[in-house]
Amino acid sequence: MDPIRYPSPVSCESIGIGLVGFGTVGSGVWNTLQSNAALITDRTSGKVSLSVRRIAVRDISKPRDADAPTELFTTDWNEVVSDPSVDIVVELIGGTTTAFDIVSAALRAKKPVVTGNKALLAERGSELFALSAEMDTPIHFEAAVAGGIPIIKAVQESLVGNRIESITGIINGTSNYILERMTEAGLSYQDALQEAQDLGYAESDPTLDVNGWDAAHKAILLATLSYGFPVDPQQVYVRGIEMVRGIDITFAKQLGYVVKLLCLVRAHEDGSIEIRTQPSFIPANHILASVNGVFNAVAIRGDRLGDAMFYGRGAGQDPTASSAVADLVEAARLQSQGSGHRGFLPYKQDGQLRSIEDTKTAYYVRFPVTDRPGVVAEIATVLAKAGIGISGTHSPVNPSEPDADFVDLVFLLHTCPFGQLKDALKSIESLDCVTDRPVVFRIETLT
Amino acid sequence: MDPIRYPSPVSCESIGIGLVGFGTVGSGVWNTLQSNAALITDRTSGKVSLSVRRIAVRDISKPRDADAPTELFTTDWNEVVSDPSVDIVVELIGGTTTAFDIVSAALRAKKPVVTGNKALLAERGSELFALSAEMDTPIHFEAAVAGGIPIIKAVQESLVGNRIESITGIINGTSNYILERMTEAGLSYQDALQEAQDLGYAESDPTLDVNGWDAAHKAILLATLSYGFPVDPQQVYVRGIEMVRGIDITFAKQLGYVVKLLCLVRAHEDGSIEIRTQPSFIPANHILASVNGVFNAVAIRGDRLGDAMFYGRGAGQDPTASSAVADLVEAARLQSQGSGHRGFLPYKQDGQLRSIEDTKTAYYVRFPVTDRPGVVAEIATVLAKAGIGISGTHSPVNPSEPDADFVDLVFLLHTCPFGQLKDALKSIESLDCVTDRPVVFRIETLT
Repeated sequence: MDPIRYPSPVSCESIGIGLVGFGTVGSGVWNTLQSNAALITDRTSGKVSLSVRRIAVRDISKPRDADAPTELFTTDWNEVVSDPSVDIVVELIGGTTTAFDIVSAALRAKKPVVTGNKALLAERGSELFALSAEMDTPIHFEAAVAGGIPIIKAVQESLVGNRIESITGIINGTSNYILERMTEAGLSYQDALQEAQDLGYAESDPTLDVNGWDAAHKAILLATLSYGFPVDPQQVYVRGIEMVRGIDITFAKQLGYVVKLLCLVRAHEDGSIEIRTQPSFIPANHILASVNGVFNAVAIRGDRLGDAMFYGRGAGQDPTASSAVADLVEAARLQSQGSGHRGFLPYKQDGQLRSIEDTKTAYYVRFPVTDRPGVVAEIATVLAKAGIGISGTHSPVNPSEPDADFVDLVFLLHTCPFGQLKDALKSIESLDCVTDRPVVFRIETLT
Repeated sequence: MDPIRYPSPVSCESIGIGLVGFGTVGSGVWNTLQSNAALITDRTSGKVSLSVRRIAVRDISKPRDADAPTELFTTDWNEVVSDPSVDIVVELIGGTTTAFDIVSAALRAKKPVVTGNKALLAERGSELFALSAEMDTPIHFEAAVAGGIPIIKAVQESLVGNRIESITGIINGTSNYILERMTEAGLSYQDALQEAQDLGYAESDPTLDVNGWDAAHKAILLATLSYGFPVDPQQVYVRGIEMVRGIDITFAKQLGYVVKLLCLVRAHEDGSIEIRTQPSFIPANHILASVNGVFNAVAIRGDRLGDAMFYGRGAGQDPTASSAVADLVEAARLQSQGSGHRGFLPYKQDGQLRSIEDTKTAYYVRFPVTDRPGVVAEIATVLAKAGIGISGTHSPVNPSEPDADFVDLVFLLHTCPFGQLKDALKSIESLDCVTDRPVVFRIETLT
């Protein structure tokens, strides 16, 4: 047996980092690099040492969670990107305009980019990935999807030998928290949202979280990674949790389901890709049903891997910084090895998205109706004419008003294309007994 | 806005693969590379094309799951390693002797190694990682731990900026299947094992699965990755599922727990590392409790990431091949880029393992006793003298023999060091009323 030898510590040149944006995640990156620098160097066999050299912020005087020296700060992001001591640019300001300029400028300067900006990449990824290819300079974006969960690396690298059959995710912690509180504590949507804001789980403008678009942006990125073509966000079906009412959650419970804001990406046999984000009923005993609070989970099915699930904190300072730092180490390794592009590049100009009208599930439909004999028959007749099967109807009794004139009538419908349901609902809406627009939830079997 | 450009397909030189071992996983690698070759080239932006050039097997005439051409086969592994057209060697024969020679020879020939051999790396990793460093040639071993779950990449790359606080895993599918069948169907250990063998979930010699060592080897690798030093397997506490009886599973259920073969790796504040594998009681409502059948799950806590969990198929042809192919792509990328070592290297000569005597949990202890008044008092008195608190005692009534002379008496004990419990048990064993050795399960709170 040979004597055991380990590599002696290598003196490594440190890689210069420029941060643009120093809010929650930026401070987390700084703190992580401060406290765990030696560990990172150790764990990369002495090959990676990271040093923050410049930080751009809007307001230098603002108090922060991290004690970076004042001389690093500037209010001009150009100074960060053009600083010759900065090798890698970290974009953490969010938005799709200035952030676009920053990322573009960094790529043109051949400086690899690390970003957590899902909106930017989902909305303008086509342009940025093309520029990344042209400049042979990667964009790393683990922090953009599911916070600390390494789902980008999993899809791109670990599942590289798999045809991705489906991805099902709970990837907006704010919505998940609100739905959980409505479910567990019986809070109204407004009260649950307020609580989430008070706890810092929802931003003062929670629009992108509760309208589904934050989750949809992430789903678009996962779809692009999986199927290799840029997805036009305008072609993607997105609904948020604003339409969820306590009565739907109660019904879901009674029927053995839980309401979750679900992202679904799925490859069909005809080559079309289904992408949608919406609050859905999922079986209460499914593992995704137990993903609570601000946690995220992504279930993936690969043709080789079968079913897998990744679970963890989907947002927050340290978890998201954990992903950004992993990307920094990856970018630094590539740079110190003189390796070329190793980020993601779409490999097709386009692909075929499945029209939402053609996607099939079972459904829960709640009709606000006048409570008189014949209502069930009238609605059922329209559904029958439309060829849609009924697996159950329910009407909740409000104990304080057992004889109320207006009630909610719930139909559980067999699997059919969404387009077929939409047409039937149009006819049903015109019935006299139906007093308001029906509310539709998909029932996902997740098999 | 610039016109959108994507990279034109690059003509890539294909990387030559040599397979040593062509059983379940080897055939899976072959089949994956056959069916998904174009996808892999696409997903690596045309940079990786893999081609199997030589396959070593013990018996060429044996029927197989994959239709590799006969001219690729040899019975001499040296021919694979020394073949100039082979760039990367995949070791899939298992065991720690010939496999050691194969991996060593490949590294000496500066050919990167992909292996799924946990026993080899856990038992002889010190030597192999040292040789890997000396030859600047990596060993990739994603397939060695948790089948298709990319836990090696997660720990090594995605959590590179984290201090790993703990890893808790269910990482032996065979044991997990047997325990599940004992729990759900009330099968005896022997019947459940037989069923697992009939279904191909357990090998004809299931020793390493049921005695805990397969799981322990994986835990050792995760600990080495996390803390950077080679772990001596002889210092690791390992117990298998052979001692689990139906009565323990029934008790666990009644008390709100599930019995799982659990691997635990944990960093303590004094710098010592706790590593152990044993059947344990875990709370029935914990997410790990719902990991059933041949699935695996690994929960990780990082100082930045917080809690995360990775779940998927822990064994089997395609899931394990999925991991091996991901490693092949990684190795091929590095080679085609002319990059140096990028696998794992320990960065410390040694570390401090926590003695099992010093590890603390609560306990479930079942004493086979003579059923007479005073037994509880006698045992409780010894425990009191040892300073061990009791949180409950139970004695199951066997409905068919309500007045049996010999019964099992269960004590639930407060958290104390295992050494303290062991000393007390020694005294209790010598009591007249105790008819056999007590059976101990740890109760893990997993908080």
